[in-house]
Amino acid sequence: MNKKPLILVTNDDGITAPGLRTLIEVMNTIGDVVVVAPDSPQSGMGHAITVNSTLYVENVEIDDNKQIEYSCSGTPADCVKLAVKQILDRRPDICVSGINHGSNSSINVIYSGTMSAALEAGIEGIPAIGFSLCDYNWGANFEACKGFVKTITENVLKNGLPKGVVLNVNIPNLPKEDIKGIKVCRQAKANWEEEFDKRQNPNGRDYYWLAGKFVNLDEGEDTDEWALEHGYVSLVPVQFDLTAHHCIQNLNTWNLND
Amino acid sequence: MNKKPLILVTNDDGITAPGLRTLIEVMNTIGDVVVVAPDSPQSGMGHAITVNSTLYVENVEIDDNKQIEYSCSGTPADCVKLAVKQILDRRPDICVSGINHGSNSSINVIYSGTMSAALEAGIEGIPAIGFSLCDYNWGANFEACKGFVKTITENVLKNGLPKGVVLNVNIPNLPKEDIKGIKVCRQAKANWEEEFDKRQNPNGRDYYWLAGKFVNLDEGEDTDEWALEHGYVSLVPVQFDLTAHHCIQNLNTWNLND
Repeated sequence: MNKKPLILVTNDDGITAPGLRTLIEVMNTIGDVVVVAPDSPQSGMGHAITVNSTLYVENVEIDDNKQIEYSCSGTPADCVKLAVKQILDRRPDICVSGINHGSNSSINVIYSGTMSAALEAGIEGIPAIGFSLCDYNWGANFEACKGFVKTITENVLKNGLPKGVVLNVNIPNLPKEDIKGIKVCRQAKANWEEEFDKRQNPNGRDYYWLAGKFVNLDEGEDTDEWALEHGYVSLVPVQFDLTAHHCIQNLNTWNLND
Repeated sequence: MNKKPLILVTNDDGITAPGLRTLIEVMNTIGDVVVVAPDSPQSGMGHAITVNSTLYVENVEIDDNKQIEYSCSGTPADCVKLAVKQILDRRPDICVSGINHGSNSSINVIYSGTMSAALEAGIEGIPAIGFSLCDYNWGANFEACKGFVKTITENVLKNGLPKGVVLNVNIPNLPKEDIKGIKVCRQAKANWEEEFDKRQNPNGRDYYWLAGKFVNLDEGEDTDEWALEHGYVSLVPVQFDLTAHHCIQNLNTWNLND
């Protein structure tokens, strides 16, 4: 009888991304790996799903390793839905997403395709983790990630995760020896101060690029931003019940039904 | 001195959607209205933002009413960012999104472009509300929505909203006289049981449509699904701190740093 866990691997940078290849390499040491990942980069896709157009899936072979791989025309959330409902013949024991090229800490979790895949798996009741390296370069060095990715994945396989919760793991862009360990955190109250870069196209029409800088005004030492700035891997438990339960009592004092 | 509130209006069904036109009509009775909405439907876009392509914005005139309108090539979240950072010359007092053609109750909040616009405004510190009517038809009747939309918007303008919280309002598809009132709720623990409809294109290539049915297994009488099923407008306070704070203590017992 096969005792190896079935591991679903996906990402948002696309099936050829070096971060995904590193994640597959680590997962091949833990279990049986099936990859269902977007055929092109999907960064900033948030929790988008494809409702008004068609989805294509192709069985592909990218390298000589033992995983099975599918390339999908949809978003990261689509990949997870297709994997669970259409491609896999049994439920995966875990879903891992990433390793993202770039941070998904603090408010970035909201915009993250990497985390949307993990959340989608969580909604399906599958333990799930999103991994990100704080380096946006395609040629980022993922070596230092491997040990942390393995440790966290094995812990989730062993301990499970509470219902309705997935993990958001961010890894600082540091050599392995300079990373101090893994720290359980809360999401920092940080945000982007956007600026739009206004340009003119060759036909004289104005267009904009989204730009801006990340600003963290949260001084808490229990946040993911603090952890990353101080050389730790941040691990934030993330939920998809978005209810602000603490506000319900106050809202009930409003004159909504006069 | 102008005492009228500045109201930013957006949606995810596109700038010509009847639900948006109804929302504009109501907002014109409350304040000065600026519309920045997608030039085409964006349903299921979640919290997508446009990071790898260009954004176009055009000043447009859709009807003879007094609002100012801009059509944008981006997602609902892009529309809010562009409005706040580029188009408006002062901060809006409130942002309203919708009225969506179709429910955004329970887990649908995660996939909702309507709510992503409201959340984006919330991240910017602007009080925000997403409105949805539980009728997916383009020709849906929005008459019964008007009074509830006005009441809730005026309450938010008067009372403000706690930092980090926006409102998700869903309106049942019933005649006005059958709607019992507004009920403050939590997000129901419901989800979609997806099925993929597999077809073949004229060239013989397989493709899929996402389909499925909505399943609510949450029997709580304090949920948005309960409210809607029982003829109430549901109002859920929604937050963008996704931290599952209740799990942090347990995760700290794991062997993450051995």
